[in-house]
Amino acid sequence: MTTFSFLDDYSEGAHPDILSALTESNYVQQAAYGEDTYSADATNRIKARLGSTFNGAIHYVANGTMANIVAISSCLRPHEAVIAVNSGHIVVREAGAIEATGHKLITVPAVDGKLTPESIEAVLSSNAHFPHMAKPRLVYISNATEAGTVYTLPELRAISALARQRGLILFLDGARLGAALASSKNDATLADIASLVDLFWIGGTKVGALVGEAIVVCNPALADDFAFHIKQRGGMLAKGRLLGIQFQELFGVKNLFFENARHANAMAAKLAAGIVSHGYALDAETATNLVFPILPDSVIAALKEHFSFHLWAKAGSECSVIRLATSWATDERQVDAFLARIAQLANAAKGGLRPVDESR
Amino acid sequence: MTTFSFLDDYSEGAHPDILSALTESNYVQQAAYGEDTYSADATNRIKARLGSTFNGAIHYVANGTMANIVAISSCLRPHEAVIAVNSGHIVVREAGAIEATGHKLITVPAVDGKLTPESIEAVLSSNAHFPHMAKPRLVYISNATEAGTVYTLPELRAISALARQRGLILFLDGARLGAALASSKNDATLADIASLVDLFWIGGTKVGALVGEAIVVCNPALADDFAFHIKQRGGMLAKGRLLGIQFQELFGVKNLFFENARHANAMAAKLAAGIVSHGYALDAETATNLVFPILPDSVIAALKEHFSFHLWAKAGSECSVIRLATSWATDERQVDAFLARIAQLANAAKGGLRPVDESR
Amino acid sequence: MTTFSFLDDYSEGAHPDILSALTESNYVQQAAYGEDTYSADATNRIKARLGSTFNGAIHYVANGTMANIVAISSCLRPHEAVIAVNSGHIVVREAGAIEATGHKLITVPAVDGKLTPESIEAVLSSNAHFPHMAKPRLVYISNATEAGTVYTLPELRAISALARQRGLILFLDGARLGAALASSKNDATLADIASLVDLFWIGGTKVGALVGEAIVVCNPALADDFAFHIKQRGGMLAKGRLLGIQFQELFGVKNLFFENARHANAMAAKLAAGIVSHGYALDAETATNLVFPILPDSVIAALKEHFSFHLWAKAGSECSVIRLATSWATDERQVDAFLARIAQLANAAKGGLRPVDESR
Amino acid sequence: MTTFSFLDDYSEGAHPDILSALTESNYVQQAAYGEDTYSADATNRIKARLGSTFNGAIHYVANGTMANIVAISSCLRPHEAVIAVNSGHIVVREAGAIEATGHKLITVPAVDGKLTPESIEAVLSSNAHFPHMAKPRLVYISNATEAGTVYTLPELRAISALARQRGLILFLDGARLGAALASSKNDATLADIASLVDLFWIGGTKVGALVGEAIVVCNPALADDFAFHIKQRGGMLAKGRLLGIQFQELFGVKNLFFENARHANAMAAKLAAGIVSHGYALDAETATNLVFPILPDSVIAALKEHFSFHLWAKAGSECSVIRLATSWATDERQVDAFLARIAQLANAAKGGLRPVDESR
Repeated sequence: MTTFSFLDDYSEGAHPDILSALTESNYVQQAAYGEDTYSADATNRIKARLGSTFNGAIHYVANGTMANIVAISSCLRPHEAVIAVNSGHIVVREAGAIEATGHKLITVPAVDGKLTPESIEAVLSSNAHFPHMAKPRLVYISNATEAGTVYTLPELRAISALARQRGLILFLDGARLGAALASSKNDATLADIASLVDLFWIGGTKVGALVGEAIVVCNPALADDFAFHIKQRGGMLAKGRLLGIQFQELFGVKNLFFENARHANAMAAKLAAGIVSHGYALDAETATNLVFPILPDSVIAALKEHFSFHLWAKAGSECSVIRLATSWATDERQVDAFLARIAQLANAAKGGLRPVDESR
Repeated sequence: MTTFSFLDDYSEGAHPDILSALTESNYVQQAAYGEDTYSADATNRIKARLGSTFNGAIHYVANGTMANIVAISSCLRPHEAVIAVNSGHIVVREAGAIEATGHKLITVPAVDGKLTPESIEAVLSSNAHFPHMAKPRLVYISNATEAGTVYTLPELRAISALARQRGLILFLDGARLGAALASSKNDATLADIASLVDLFWIGGTKVGALVGEAIVVCNPALADDFAFHIKQRGGMLAKGRLLGIQFQELFGVKNLFFENARHANAMAAKLAAGIVSHGYALDAETATNLVFPILPDSVIAALKEHFSFHLWAKAGSECSVIRLATSWATDERQVDAFLARIAQLANAAKGGLRPVDESR
Repeated sequence: MTTFSFLDDYSEGAHPDILSALTESNYVQQAAYGEDTYSADATNRIKARLGSTFNGAIHYVANGTMANIVAISSCLRPHEAVIAVNSGHIVVREAGAIEATGHKLITVPAVDGKLTPESIEAVLSSNAHFPHMAKPRLVYISNATEAGTVYTLPELRAISALARQRGLILFLDGARLGAALASSKNDATLADIASLVDLFWIGGTKVGALVGEAIVVCNPALADDFAFHIKQRGGMLAKGRLLGIQFQELFGVKNLFFENARHANAMAAKLAAGIVSHGYALDAETATNLVFPILPDSVIAALKEHFSFHLWAKAGSECSVIRLATSWATDERQVDAFLARIAQLANAAKGGLRPVDESR
Repeated sequence: MTTFSFLDDYSEGAHPDILSALTESNYVQQAAYGEDTYSADATNRIKARLGSTFNGAIHYVANGTMANIVAISSCLRPHEAVIAVNSGHIVVREAGAIEATGHKLITVPAVDGKLTPESIEAVLSSNAHFPHMAKPRLVYISNATEAGTVYTLPELRAISALARQRGLILFLDGARLGAALASSKNDATLADIASLVDLFWIGGTKVGALVGEAIVVCNPALADDFAFHIKQRGGMLAKGRLLGIQFQELFGVKNLFFENARHANAMAAKLAAGIVSHGYALDAETATNLVFPILPDSVIAALKEHFSFHLWAKAGSECSVIRLATSWATDERQVDAFLARIAQLANAAKGGLRPVDESR
């Protein structure tokens, strides 16, 4: 029997408009390596969201690790280090990609998945025995975070202010930026982010692109020679049109970047509310497209017959936390099916206390 | 007025079968990061061409520079160097990507675009002052070469034999492997190549994929932990299905990998023959999908009104070499149009010598 | 007024026998780059201490960071990471030198300055999401540790057994190996260490050399091409004799390597005992040449008039921990003077409780 | 029988004044890591030679490869490349040390051992296909060159002017800078060099130091954070005094830096003149401490009985070029002995035509 997957937000292909656009444009000859007209147009569309003061550059790469490698290594000198939370994607999910470019990661515990000004200050004061210690220089944050939480605008402003005061570069990993901006917890715009960070990237893969992330270099001083780094790290596609066309669609009239994220978040919210209504708690608030219910292991086992998801952590002797991820492609009927099944299992569990009654 | 481009072999999107396959499979949920069933099937299809003794592994990445970075850096220790021709893609077209992984390139002049056993021997003997010199360890060849030429099977065997005798790793950059295998000059099969080199890659981008190259690790000793390198260098796609689906099509029943390359080569051969028939010489024999005619600068200027191509080199005071590239997508009518135009210009030029006669 | 320094164990030049040996050999012409007869003889002398089964190689470099860079980068593939304690020298005192060679450091809290088998197991189990995480491959320990503690032979055996079982490379940073081996807490010999680790280094700088550390590659599989790494990282001296001559003296008839360390430890033990006898506690047991007394801030201020040392940590509102380092060159009269001064200050402090009496 | 070595300029230890200074200062306690008073004084002495407009910084490292690694990697971004001659020390004698820091070397043939403005222009024009090619950014020259030749002041000015005009960093490897400045072909001062290049280093090892080179960062913009790079690359000595004391002596009242080089050059000149006077030609003019005589192979074989030197190149069927290197330590009596032996051999060779006469 086939299971429906809530494993992640990249189990399907692409939003159908993207496939249509690829098909329609297929035989139009274009310049290579990102010099195509589609990429130029996508850049104009994104810039229109970044505020009139934006004076930087936008580049496209295929995936998030590449975006992080290029963005970070392009602006650091060899002795400069990165400040990140322990759970940061570059710390635990990129196979040492940043260190492979020569830079140390200095990590601190996350607070609700986030980096705080206090943590940054702590890193600066405990990493000041120069030149015997690498010099903390770049602040890495993810929004939404790896825990599914969202930075508020005041939080972003506080980190940005500290970074500017202390001469630090602020970089935001936007693999899940769509989910963050579409979150009910969010009060920041793309223009806010562009005004507060030195560089960031807008994740396309998780909101319906086949591949593709847009790196936005906000600080003009960091934009010089940026394309060299993409080329040197192996991130430049001959058919750059593939990235440009997709970002044209994501930032087109249908506003797919936001709408796809909004759908994913809505599906997660529906899952969360339903699970809670059936008497189960969540391990963390559902701010984006990730839901972390705490369920009896027996319920989890039964759910596994029809759905796939990640087992996240133990929660006592007979319960565990699972992670459900929704996406632009999540079929609401599957959400309903999941909730129906959990209702059934919840009732059975209650009924389990009265087996005699039930057999009557 | 629009011009038709003979600039390169990646000006269009993808073969229509690839777009159809992407569309058909779009909502099938799949495991991420190359663990999808499409990639597994593509691997089986490729392995079926590699001979029964093949005992290695196949991995997919998005582009050629990434394929070179991963393949080379995965199998060298820090002090080991690469032997390549001066014109090698890694030498002059990848922005120092290999050096950025820490390895020296030792270069020698190409002979007809190729590396020879004699050149390799020369590198070994002039780079033996150890440990003061980096240790030559990996031989890099491209087939088809950057000059459009093709290694014959005896040439490949000679290099392979030398590499094995001297403890060198032999690596083949197959960005244009389709063009090579479909060349009239070719006498090698994929299975031959797999038996002679330690690792190579099969270029998809230039034969009709949107993105994608298949790295074939033939030497099992080099296959360990290979996926780590792809991940660490930023080459692993969340939606690995994008690569798997394309290689399924390229190596499917229609044999698109070979057929697309054959079409490109045929278009080049037609261009070459036509140009010669109109009285112009070629700077090099046309073995693959690159044609290098020597034309009067006035003819070139006139052609530029309707066609785009690269100006390659000066050839005397009033002539130049241009480069025409054909591809899987080259429309034969455009080839005909190009030849018609050149015929017209050739006649005008002849006429130019006898204006009085012509007016009669 | 001049102060006497207990800041570190490298405030003076070299043991006088070393200076004499340099002077006596000065005009003897020798081969360069470590091929001199002094280095060969030093190697033989060290090998004589490593046990009859030793089958590896010994190389000399100028300093500890270089020894760590060369040893670690010579034996890891790009995706392989290092396990170390948070307080490890490579983690916090080498300016990101290991990351600059491309490798991730995975850190865990130290237990009494040491790494434990449990910590290693914890790293392995929490860093197993492959290939998305770097692969833990090399275990880094320091003996004596950065906290001045010493690994016992059973502790070393347990780590070594685990490393071998799990396919990990075990590397020991011996910047303070002399202090460790001369410690009353030590029960291991150089031969024990050589039999348990894959590679380690014997620190010369801290036991009376001007510069110089001896890298001992115990595992023959790691010895291949080792000199290339020294050369490539900038660690090879033209006048390698400078290192050879010093290690000849350290491992000569006077056994200076052990005797110099023993003197340093004895001076530390005398300081520790004296300080305790005057009523002050130690923050940690004194196992080697580092003493960590807890003293009233007023006493510390008074001591600073005549002695220099590091302020280590606060210990309550009016006390602090200081660090006193002794060395091969520590003049016992200065130790006595320090203890006399502390006795005076301790008495004054007791008197401070009876100021009226004192004024009589 | 012992041979006298003309193999290189680092076969002996150190100038005796250096050993005396090390001995005299031995028990003076000093701050570590280059913060000692000796290094500060050495820096003042060197600055006194650099001209009143010098506004940079001076740092000390142990050897030349380290000086090159630190100087080059400290001032380049990842995509920037180095321009050097094929015979440059970093190209063929440092085991890929610069590439190991991630940077490409773009090489051109040397003219009389030197780089020329024309060669630099050629590199710039053939490496301009951006961003597909690494960006040429730093010009590396050696003075004296690896061929023993010396840049004239006009030559240095021309390269410097071009570098400034084209935004290139000019770096001078001064392993043999003493030999260059003491050459009869030289018309530049240390102050001239400091005013023309962005950074350079003054070699100590080849003019009588045990170890040690002084890196002079002339361009203040490149001086920021310089010590981090030394630390990170493993070039910082705990006992930095060892370097400071030696450069105090080299730049002290006896002017040993120049006098030692002058002696070496004088010994080479004497060898050259003597060899020529006995009827043998030189393969290159003797500008510094390297002599390249062309000798019959039979003469070479006979000389080898008493002297050691490098066989440099074949010169016809029965002759070869050898390289004789002199140094601060070369005993003039050995020069005389060499010339006496060559005279004897020359006469015998002439006599060889008249053996009967000679026996009379």
